[in-house]
Amino acid sequence: MKPLIVKLGGSVITNKRRRFTVKRATLTRLARELSVAKGPLVIVHGGGSFGHPVASKYGIAEGYKSKDQLMGLSLTHRAMERLNSYVIEALQKASLPAIAVQPSACAVVSGGRIQSMELTPIQKMLALGLIPVLYGDAVPDLSKGMSILSGDQLVVQLARELGGKRVILGVDVDGVYTVNPKTNKNAELIQEISLSNWPSVEKRLTGVVEGRDVTGGIANKMRELLALAERGVEAEIVNAAKPNILKRAILGEVGLGTRVVAR
Amino acid sequence: MKPLIVKLGGSVITNKRRRFTVKRATLTRLARELSVAKGPLVIVHGGGSFGHPVASKYGIAEGYKSKDQLMGLSLTHRAMERLNSYVIEALQKASLPAIAVQPSACAVVSGGRIQSMELTPIQKMLALGLIPVLYGDAVPDLSKGMSILSGDQLVVQLARELGGKRVILGVDVDGVYTVNPKTNKNAELIQEISLSNWPSVEKRLTGVVEGRDVTGGIANKMRELLALAERGVEAEIVNAAKPNILKRAILGEVGLGTRVVAR
Repeated sequence: MKPLIVKLGGSVITNKRRRFTVKRATLTRLARELSVAKGPLVIVHGGGSFGHPVASKYGIAEGYKSKDQLMGLSLTHRAMERLNSYVIEALQKASLPAIAVQPSACAVVSGGRIQSMELTPIQKMLALGLIPVLYGDAVPDLSKGMSILSGDQLVVQLARELGGKRVILGVDVDGVYTVNPKTNKNAELIQEISLSNWPSVEKRLTGVVEGRDVTGGIANKMRELLALAERGVEAEIVNAAKPNILKRAILGEVGLGTRVVAR
Repeated sequence: MKPLIVKLGGSVITNKRRRFTVKRATLTRLARELSVAKGPLVIVHGGGSFGHPVASKYGIAEGYKSKDQLMGLSLTHRAMERLNSYVIEALQKASLPAIAVQPSACAVVSGGRIQSMELTPIQKMLALGLIPVLYGDAVPDLSKGMSILSGDQLVVQLARELGGKRVILGVDVDGVYTVNPKTNKNAELIQEISLSNWPSVEKRLTGVVEGRDVTGGIANKMRELLALAERGVEAEIVNAAKPNILKRAILGEVGLGTRVVAR
């Protein structure tokens, strides 16, 4: 059975302004909302105030340049594992048998892109009834030495390789806006992005879904989701910071935020 | 360059009598001793009072039988990650750029044995100068549903596949004894185990290197190490609970405990 793939954005589950601070109450609520999922589920989460500041400090995304980046990669990964452990614990408390899957242990990355990924353990976990939980990670990179493997890239890779049935991206605003809705009152929510309207939508996009991060912009993200939609996997970008929106999306409701479809 | 592979036994780094209790001072000392290693280094650690009690409670090693084992696997893995985080932190504090490698994310296991393992990320980590740190883990199993992948099996697999130059197993007694030295005064330390003396040594073995664990007995361990020795990788079993023994072994001293050689 094809899994549902849910991404929890870093700005949803962490306090982006305070380093290494998790939003515990939000995580508890999200774990409860995730528990309504019937059938196989894969969770991917971002780095928020755990991974990003450390990765930025050491320039991990720019590739290997100096020896001190080794400790930087070590520290970035540990920061992500710490955040991951909060997520796993919240899920366990909601009686969900979640299990971490370390991206830097199973993905072979080159030039910041996944070249191949060992998926057999994840497939077996899903078949058993476990919930694999992946996360954006600092990874060794075959060509750049090291790079950042974003949660978004993992979502797309997993949806493609596992034949995901649907992707839900939980962010901290209502969906994709033309400009940043947190700083611009004229921001307009885009309800649907499709292959046909993308060229005109792209021109209007000057904002972001989430705050700035080290993993690339919104346009790249949309292009990846459109490629996924072409393969039959629809994506929903919804506001997971608002109670019950993620739950309703998991239960099948569409149009809660921005849909990314082929059409 | 071929890596040195060091195993830290669970009974060396944890207090086996008190659940989820790490020996912090020992870890700090061992991290300092490990820092004398020149060239690539891989560390593998056992489960001690973290992984074993949880794995035992849910019968993970016996394979999948009932749904409550899913939460058991989830909890066992989390316990091992917690222990691993203490190890990683101790290594980071000793300025060693250590990085966890989750076995359940990259090893494909069937019938409790590694069938294949994605080693490219580990090889790239080593080439960069990072220190991969693996651990005994609860894993999905293609034939049994779930099983335990022991640190010892990982050591042998890594030494074989990475072409390890030498293996050092740190335990909490002076080496391999004929009987358990902790409970029997007539225990004799075996200084060398080789292909030629193994049949007679095996008959004398009624003891254990470490306390009882869920990962199988000493005879199996010796047979694996002998197979490794046949391929040119010598093993040393030394007392890592005593200060400076591990360090001296890393610096190249032999005969500190039990040597496993081909001959």
